Amino acid sequence: MDNSILKLFNTEYPIVQGGMIWCSGWELASAVSNAGGLGLIGSGSMYPEVLVDHIRKCKAATNKPFGVNIPLLYPNIEEHIHSVIEEGVKVVFTSAGNPATWTKKLKDNGITVVHVTANTKFAKKSEDAGVDAIVAEGFEAGGHNGREETTTLCLIPMIKQAVKIPVIAAGGIGTGRGMLAAMALGADGVQIGSRFVASKESSADIHFKNAVINAVEGDTKLMLKQVTPVRLLKTSFLIKCLKRKQEVPALLNFQNY
Amino acid sequence: MDNSILKLFNTEYPIVQGGMIWCSGWELASAVSNAGGLGLIGSGSMYPEVLVDHIRKCKAATNKPFGVNIPLLYPNIEEHIHSVIEEGVKVVFTSAGNPATWTKKLKDNGITVVHVTANTKFAKKSEDAGVDAIVAEGFEAGGHNGREETTTLCLIPMIKQAVKIPVIAAGGIGTGRGMLAAMALGADGVQIGSRFVASKESSADIHFKNAVINAVEGDTKLMLKQVTPVRLLKTSFLIKCLKRKQEVPALLNFQNY
Repeated sequence: MDNSILKLFNTEYPIVQGGMIWCSGWELASAVSNAGGLGLIGSGSMYPEVLVDHIRKCKAATNKPFGVNIPLLYPNIEEHIHSVIEEGVKVVFTSAGNPATWTKKLKDNGITVVHVTANTKFAKKSEDAGVDAIVAEGFEAGGHNGREETTTLCLIPMIKQAVKIPVIAAGGIGTGRGMLAAMALGADGVQIGSRFVASKESSADIHFKNAVINAVEGDTKLMLKQVTPVRLLKTSFLIKCLKRKQEVPALLNFQNY
Repeated sequence: MDNSILKLFNTEYPIVQGGMIWCSGWELASAVSNAGGLGLIGSGSMYPEVLVDHIRKCKAATNKPFGVNIPLLYPNIEEHIHSVIEEGVKVVFTSAGNPATWTKKLKDNGITVVHVTANTKFAKKSEDAGVDAIVAEGFEAGGHNGREETTTLCLIPMIKQAVKIPVIAAGGIGTGRGMLAAMALGADGVQIGSRFVASKESSADIHFKNAVINAVEGDTKLMLKQVTPVRLLKTSFLIKCLKRKQEVPALLNFQNY
């Protein structure tokens, strides 16, 4: 298989396990990497010393390539950047921030850098910032998302046309069919999240795993659009919040729901 | 090509031109049918006598199969049903209503019936009502849309799994790549709208054609969710309406925008 993502990460399959706060520690990342994909430790929910511990455990659990996802809005971002460099992490996925800020430093330290975007404009900015590949994340993706609400089916061909670097499709992909569709649209690889949340090795709580498995059409919704759009499961707690939205602090502005 | 849609419609390609109010009269429908797809006359914006006129002109313009799209909410629905039967139309696509109401009558008159849905529940109901195929329309589709906001990428595999009849994918498809992706997801054919709006034979106004062509990421939005969800272009008129939403009559409830 002549594939730019396999060459970039030196993996067996062009499948990336998305970095997900609380769900993707060293157990999941190493399991995915051992199975031939690229596992990512999600550092967004980790204190700096916790990340170092997960990186070390991941290195002990696999000889295959793995990476760390760092949301650039992380408050102690310098410490996370320092940790991945010090611990010899080979691949970093950055998200939720400006790719120009840290890409050069990471690349100067021999790290492959991938940035997550949800629109063409930031895909081009990421390429200009020197990243090695793009994750193009559609409207159907779980977690943080773009304001334009562009779906994976529409987004991938546009981003593929806009940049020369490899494109990894994300959002709504959880099967071989979905992967084939993404590649028909021009993607070089795929990033999968929710399907991995529901795996044994995921550190998500069993109730969350079951909620993901049992979710049907209409059970998730893109919310918090005025703050930062995020796709959430409509749990009973969330529905209660929506009903009491006047009382929710300004930061959790559900107004645009 | 062993394809259930080609067999059902007796066309050369498994491509349906979506019925679209104001945009798809006999000129567009006959042009698509002459080119090997299935052209549809969009009857939702036509008075009964106008529809009859378009059907007759379409018959004169092509010997190939063509169809009529009838939104079941159309106020003079009985007259449209009568017209398609009287004029010997071979294919009817129904949408925006209960497929149980008219399917039997149409099929008793030898008409192939396809119903448009945006979720699994109504796909199953349509199959139970005896339709010959389903259009499964994702969140990215223009015009009327589902409340669940399920994207084409997620919707097609679910509906394909839920029903035994052929599935036509719609929403976000406008290229060969998109068509291949839809078929990788399990679709037997595709329905394309906006791409045909922008064609010479479409009866859309040139300003609307240009607006469709020039639209970029984020330029359309699913709105009127409290009434009946519809994907609209964010024109300056619409933005003005949104700014003055308090003054807009209750029927045009933008509250959920």
